[in-house]
Amino acid sequence: MSRRLTYGMVGGGPGSFIGDAHRRAISLDSSARLAAGCFSRTPEKSKSQGEALGLEPERCYTNYREMAQAEGKREDGIDFVVVVTPNATHYEICKAFLEAGIHVACDKPLATDSAQAEELQKLAQEKGLLFMVTYTYMGHVTAKYIRDLIKAGEIGQIRTVMAEYPQGWLYNENDWGGKQGEWRCDPAQSGRVNCLGDLGTHVENAVATMTGLKVKRVLAKMDVVVPGRKLDDNDQILVEYEGGATGVNWSSQFAIGCDNSLRVRIYGSKGTILWFQENPEEITLIREDGIARTIKRGYGAVTPDAAKYGRLPAGHTEGWLEAMGNLYDSFTQCVEAKEEGTFTEDRIDYPTVAAGVQGIRYVEACLESNEKGNVWVEV
Amino acid sequence: MSRRLTYGMVGGGPGSFIGDAHRRAISLDSSARLAAGCFSRTPEKSKSQGEALGLEPERCYTNYREMAQAEGKREDGIDFVVVVTPNATHYEICKAFLEAGIHVACDKPLATDSAQAEELQKLAQEKGLLFMVTYTYMGHVTAKYIRDLIKAGEIGQIRTVMAEYPQGWLYNENDWGGKQGEWRCDPAQSGRVNCLGDLGTHVENAVATMTGLKVKRVLAKMDVVVPGRKLDDNDQILVEYEGGATGVNWSSQFAIGCDNSLRVRIYGSKGTILWFQENPEEITLIREDGIARTIKRGYGAVTPDAAKYGRLPAGHTEGWLEAMGNLYDSFTQCVEAKEEGTFTEDRIDYPTVAAGVQGIRYVEACLESNEKGNVWVEV
Amino acid sequence: MSRRLTYGMVGGGPGSFIGDAHRRAISLDSSARLAAGCFSRTPEKSKSQGEALGLEPERCYTNYREMAQAEGKREDGIDFVVVVTPNATHYEICKAFLEAGIHVACDKPLATDSAQAEELQKLAQEKGLLFMVTYTYMGHVTAKYIRDLIKAGEIGQIRTVMAEYPQGWLYNENDWGGKQGEWRCDPAQSGRVNCLGDLGTHVENAVATMTGLKVKRVLAKMDVVVPGRKLDDNDQILVEYEGGATGVNWSSQFAIGCDNSLRVRIYGSKGTILWFQENPEEITLIREDGIARTIKRGYGAVTPDAAKYGRLPAGHTEGWLEAMGNLYDSFTQCVEAKEEGTFTEDRIDYPTVAAGVQGIRYVEACLESNEKGNVWVEV
Amino acid sequence: MSRRLTYGMVGGGPGSFIGDAHRRAISLDSSARLAAGCFSRTPEKSKSQGEALGLEPERCYTNYREMAQAEGKREDGIDFVVVVTPNATHYEICKAFLEAGIHVACDKPLATDSAQAEELQKLAQEKGLLFMVTYTYMGHVTAKYIRDLIKAGEIGQIRTVMAEYPQGWLYNENDWGGKQGEWRCDPAQSGRVNCLGDLGTHVENAVATMTGLKVKRVLAKMDVVVPGRKLDDNDQILVEYEGGATGVNWSSQFAIGCDNSLRVRIYGSKGTILWFQENPEEITLIREDGIARTIKRGYGAVTPDAAKYGRLPAGHTEGWLEAMGNLYDSFTQCVEAKEEGTFTEDRIDYPTVAAGVQGIRYVEACLESNEKGNVWVEV
Repeated sequence: MSRRLTYGMVGGGPGSFIGDAHRRAISLDSSARLAAGCFSRTPEKSKSQGEALGLEPERCYTNYREMAQAEGKREDGIDFVVVVTPNATHYEICKAFLEAGIHVACDKPLATDSAQAEELQKLAQEKGLLFMVTYTYMGHVTAKYIRDLIKAGEIGQIRTVMAEYPQGWLYNENDWGGKQGEWRCDPAQSGRVNCLGDLGTHVENAVATMTGLKVKRVLAKMDVVVPGRKLDDNDQILVEYEGGATGVNWSSQFAIGCDNSLRVRIYGSKGTILWFQENPEEITLIREDGIARTIKRGYGAVTPDAAKYGRLPAGHTEGWLEAMGNLYDSFTQCVEAKEEGTFTEDRIDYPTVAAGVQGIRYVEACLESNEKGNVWVEV
Repeated sequence: MSRRLTYGMVGGGPGSFIGDAHRRAISLDSSARLAAGCFSRTPEKSKSQGEALGLEPERCYTNYREMAQAEGKREDGIDFVVVVTPNATHYEICKAFLEAGIHVACDKPLATDSAQAEELQKLAQEKGLLFMVTYTYMGHVTAKYIRDLIKAGEIGQIRTVMAEYPQGWLYNENDWGGKQGEWRCDPAQSGRVNCLGDLGTHVENAVATMTGLKVKRVLAKMDVVVPGRKLDDNDQILVEYEGGATGVNWSSQFAIGCDNSLRVRIYGSKGTILWFQENPEEITLIREDGIARTIKRGYGAVTPDAAKYGRLPAGHTEGWLEAMGNLYDSFTQCVEAKEEGTFTEDRIDYPTVAAGVQGIRYVEACLESNEKGNVWVEV
Repeated sequence: MSRRLTYGMVGGGPGSFIGDAHRRAISLDSSARLAAGCFSRTPEKSKSQGEALGLEPERCYTNYREMAQAEGKREDGIDFVVVVTPNATHYEICKAFLEAGIHVACDKPLATDSAQAEELQKLAQEKGLLFMVTYTYMGHVTAKYIRDLIKAGEIGQIRTVMAEYPQGWLYNENDWGGKQGEWRCDPAQSGRVNCLGDLGTHVENAVATMTGLKVKRVLAKMDVVVPGRKLDDNDQILVEYEGGATGVNWSSQFAIGCDNSLRVRIYGSKGTILWFQENPEEITLIREDGIARTIKRGYGAVTPDAAKYGRLPAGHTEGWLEAMGNLYDSFTQCVEAKEEGTFTEDRIDYPTVAAGVQGIRYVEACLESNEKGNVWVEV
Repeated sequence: MSRRLTYGMVGGGPGSFIGDAHRRAISLDSSARLAAGCFSRTPEKSKSQGEALGLEPERCYTNYREMAQAEGKREDGIDFVVVVTPNATHYEICKAFLEAGIHVACDKPLATDSAQAEELQKLAQEKGLLFMVTYTYMGHVTAKYIRDLIKAGEIGQIRTVMAEYPQGWLYNENDWGGKQGEWRCDPAQSGRVNCLGDLGTHVENAVATMTGLKVKRVLAKMDVVVPGRKLDDNDQILVEYEGGATGVNWSSQFAIGCDNSLRVRIYGSKGTILWFQENPEEITLIREDGIARTIKRGYGAVTPDAAKYGRLPAGHTEGWLEAMGNLYDSFTQCVEAKEEGTFTEDRIDYPTVAAGVQGIRYVEACLESNEKGNVWVEV
C-alpha cells in the first residue's frame, strides 16, 4: 500500500457517477491520492468542487491544458491523470497530458476515430509513458482467470465465441434515459455510433482479453429500433477471428430485463467457459466429461495471477468497483515502477492504449459493413 | 381417454429411440393403440418386432406401400400412421399413406427439398387429411403459454429474438456419435445439410410458433468446424422477420456442455420472455418494471389453452415425452373429430405440414446465402 | 419389454390424478397391462369405469375382497395389484390381496399405525410375496446416482443432512385445497397427522434411501399454523442418525412459492451432494476442492446402476412419471423373476414394505416427541 | 461527502483482513479519515504501521487506554473509534473509549457475556454516545429492502423463518484454517462457543433485522463434529419468536462447498421472501399468485430508504465492502449530526449496541439449552 503517488482528474466532479467511481476504485488500495483536478470551466465551481474533494485551491484548474502544463512542471506534480470527460474530448485532453510527460488513464472509448487513437498510441510510445484505457470489466478476477485458463490450453483451440452485452434502460421511446442516455443517443455528441461504441466495444475487448483472439473481419447489422432514435440501439455482428474461430457479438439498449448483461461464452475443442458480468464472482468450466464446474473467486483453483487481485475471502462478494480497482492496482504499480526505473512490459496487467485503438478500429469496420449492406469488412 | 383410434408405424422398431419415444408419448393418454407396423424389410424380423409390440402377424408389413394399401382398405384399418424413418424416405412414405387416405404424423424434417414438401402439403389438402410434423418442443405447456402471452400483446411489439440450439455431442473429431451421428454427418444420407436441418429447423419453428413471426430473409454463415466433417456443424444466422423484427439464430453440434439447449429469448417493446428447453416447466417474463417473473407450469397464471395440457400438478415435473404427448393429444382429437365429422381448423394445436414446408424453405434459403458468401436471401 | 404381466387396481378410476399417474407410469415401458379393477362400490359405475379403461366387464369388481379372491383363483389372474385408495384403507386391502397370494404395490403411507404396517410386512414375508410402497421420488435416476456415490464413499462419512419438503398450496385459511386438501386436513380421514404423513415421510425416505442412514431418534416440533386447521401443517424436526450424523427435516404446507420442493443436502467429510426434486435431472457434487459440479442424467459420469433407468438422452428432460415408471420397471422385473423362479433379493431396486414400516415408525416417534413437549424419542 | 470526521482504529494493522476491510469500507464515501491508531504493543511497530497508513507519529499508540485518553482530550481528537481486536478484548477497549467520550464502532461479537454487553449498552446511553456493532451483512441494500417490505406488510404475518449460515473452510480435521481458524477453535481465545458466535449470531441478527421478530426461546443442538475440535462447529436450533412465528437456525463450519452462505427464507401469510448473501444484489419475492419475482438492487421497485445506499446502477455489482460501507454511511452521518446537535434516534440505520447485546443473550440461551440436553430456554 504505497502512499507515494498522486493523481489528477479531468472531468468527474464530486457526485458524478464516473468521477466518484474512479476515485472510489483508486481509494480501495490507497495506492494514489487525488492532488489536482479540472472539474469545471468556471473558477469558482472548479475550486469549490476541488475543495470538496480535499484539493488545495491552487491545484483546482479551469483549463486542462493549463493543468497539464502546470502539473508537468511542478516538483510534486501528479504522477498520472484520469480522464473522464465526454468521449469527443478524450483525444485532445490525453494528448495534452502526454505532451506534458504525464501518464494517462482514460475512459473508453479512447477517441472518435482511429487516426486520433493511433496518434495517442504513437505519442505515448515516443514519450515512454503509460496509457490505460479503463475497460472496467476485464479487471474482474474471474476474467483474468479465464484468460489464464485459455492461455494454458484448458479448453483447447477456440471454435466459436457467443458474446453479448444487452441493456434495457433505453427501451422506451418516451424515456431517453436522462442525461446519460441523451448524449449517447445524440449524433452531435456521440458521432456515428451509440450502442456499439458504448457496449459493443466492451464485447470486443472482453473476447480479445479473455481469449487472445484478434478480429479478422466483421459482418455487422446495426439497427435503429426504438422509434425516434437516430443512432444504432441494437447491433448483431458476425465475426471471424484470425486463425479461423467464429463468433456472434450482440449488443442492445432495449432488452428489457437486462441491466448490464455482458456475457461471454467460449466454445473450444476441449471445453467450454461461461462468464457473466452480473455474477462476476464465478465462472463455469465444462470439460469433455460434460460436467459443469462452477469455480468461484477465492479458491486455490483460480490461477495465482488472477487470485492475487482478490481483497476478500470467497463468498464475500466483490463487484464492479473492485474490478476497476484491479486495473488501477496494476496501473499504479507500473507507474511506480516507471518512476523507480524498474518497469518492464510484462508487468502490464491492464488494458492499454493498444486495446483502445483496437476498439475504435472494430467500430469503424462495423460501421462500414453496415453501411454497405451487411458485407464482410476486414478490421 | 378414447380407445377408438388405432395407428400404424413405419420405422422405429422396439428398442429404437424414436420409435419407443412416439409410442410412449401416445400411450400417455391411451388415445390410440398401435395396430400395424412396418419395421423391417425381412418378413421374419418385421413379424417378430411387431409381435413384441403386440401386433397381429398379418399387420406386420415388410413394405410400406403394401401397408398403406392394405390398411387403407381394411374395415378396421389404422386411423393414422407415424413415420419415423430416415429423413430421405419421409417424402415417399408420407405420400403413399396420404394416397391411401390415411392421416399422417411424420418426424421432422418433412422432406429433403421444398418441392417435395409442398407436394405433400398439397396432397394432404386435396385429400382432406390431417398431417402433423412432430416438432416436439412446441408441445411443452410453457411454449404454448408463451404463444398465448405474445398473442395477447403482453410484451408489445417484438423487436429482436435471440434463438439458439447448441448441442455438444459431436465435438470430438474422433467420435462421430455412433449410428445417430454418422448418418447426420454423411452427405449421402443427409443431403446438403446436417446441423441446420437437425437443430436449426427447431430454432426456426420455435420462434415462429411462439411469436407468430415469419422469416423474411436470412444471412447465413454455415461452417464445417470439427476436423474431418463434411457438413455444417455450426450455423450462425442473421434473420429479418416480416414487420421489421430482427434476430440471430445459432445452432451447433460441438458446444461442449450443451446437451439439448434450445433456448429462445424474445425482446418486445413492453417486455421480455425467456424460455429454455432443458428447464421446460417454467418461463421468465420481464415487464417494464424490470422484475423477472418466473412462472411455472401448473399455475392459474398460465393461460387455460396452455394449462389444459398439464397432466400433473405444479412441481411434479413433466418433460420431453409429455411435450410429444401433447402434440398427439391434439392430433388424435382432430383425427377423431375428422371421423366424427366435427372437425374444424381452429381445433388444430399441433405443428402441421405447413410448418414442415416452412422449415425446408428456411434451410434452402440459408444454404443459398452461405454458398453466395453470406448475403441476404429471401425465404 | 415384456407383455406377460397383468395388474389390477383398487381405487383410482379414470380421471383421478393418482390412478392415471400409476397407469401412465406403468405404460411407459408397457411392462404390464391393466386387466382388473375395483373403482367403485356401485356395479354400474365400476363397470363403466373399467370399460373406459379397456377392462372386460367380469373383471370390474365392486368389492376388493371379492376381487382378491376371484383374481387369486383365475388361471389368468392378475400378477400384482396397485392400491391407490384413501390411506386409512391401505392396510385391509393390501392384506386381502396378500392373503390371496397376489403381489402388491401400495401408495404411501403404508398404514395408519406401525402394528398394521408390521403385520403386512410379516404377511408378505411369510407368503413370499413382493410388496412395493411407491415413494415416487426415489425412482429418479439422480436419486439412485446419489445413493451409488455415497455407497462408494465419494463424500466420505456423512456429517449432517438438511432435508425439506415445503409446499405452499394450503397457505390460505379460506382455501382448503379442494378434495385433495380437505381429506388431508381432516382428522377423521387422516388420523393424528397431516403434513408429516404426507410430506415428512418422503423426507425420511429420501434421506434413508440416498444415504443409507437410519434415524436413531427425533426431536419434533409439529405446529398447526394456518388458522382453522386441526392437524400439523409445519414440522421442524431435529434428527440423530445411527453412527452419529445429525440433521434437520422440515416439511410445510404453507410455504408460498414452493410447489413440491423436496430438497436434500448431504454434507460429508469429503464432499457435499445437493438434490432438488423440482430439478430432478441433475445433481450438484462438491468435492474438497470446493468446485460445484453439476452432473446431469444421461452422462457416462452417472453410475450404470442409475443410468440404466434413463429412457431419453441427456437434455431431453424426464420427470415425475418417469420416476414412478422406474419403480415399476424394477418391480415388474422382480414379479416376472418371481414367476420364473429366478428372483433373488439383490434384484430389488424399489422401496419395499420395510421402507413403509420405517415411515410409520418415524411418524409415531415424531408425534410422541411433539406431544411430550419436543423431547428426544427413539424411533 | 463530508471531510470533517476523523477516526481511530484499535487492532487491524495494514495487511490484516479486518483492518483493511473497515478502512476500505469507510473510504468508499470518504466520510471519515483515519487519524489515530493502536496497532501494536511495541512502539516501533505501532509507529511504522501507523505511518504506512499515513498517520502522524504522535497519534500512533501502543496502548488503547492511553489512546482513548489522549484522543479524548485533543482539540482535534478522533470523532469515533473502530475496534477490530480479538473478541475477548472488545469489552474493555470499548469501555475505555466510551469513558473518554468517544463514539464507538465495534466488530461483533460485542463481548463475551451478556453482563459485559449490557454494561457497554448502559454506558453508551449514559454518555449519550453512538455505538455501532458491525453486523456487516445487514448493510446490503437488499437486506434493507426486505426489512421495508415486511414492515409494509407485503408478505403478511410471518409464519416461519428458515435461516442458515454454513461455511466449509474448517471441514478438514488436518487443517485448522490457519490463524483465522485456530483462534476460533481455541476455547482459550473463543470461550465457550465457536461456530455459533462467529456465524450463528449473524443468523440471529439477520432474521431480527429483516423481520423485526424477537426470539422468545430456543432449543439448541450444538455439536462438535470434526475430529479433534473442542468447540461447536455445527449448530441446529429450533426457534420460537414472540408472536408465535417459528424457525430453524443452522450454522456450520464443515459444509463443503459453502463459502459464506448466509441465507434467509421468510414465509408469511401472504408471501415469501428469499435472500442469499452470496448473491446480495437481488431478492426473490413470491406473492399469493405463486410467481417468483426476482428484484434487483437499482430499480425503482426497491424502496427509497433502501435504494439510497446504492452507489452504482443496477447490473454494476456491489458487494461486501459496500455493505459495510453502508453501515458506516449511516453511522458517520449520525456522528456528524451528534456533533452538530441535529441528531435524532430515527436517523439510526445501522446495528446498534442493542443488537450486540441481543446476540450475546441468544448465544447464552443456546449454550444453556444445549447443556441441558436440548430443552427450550427463554432468551
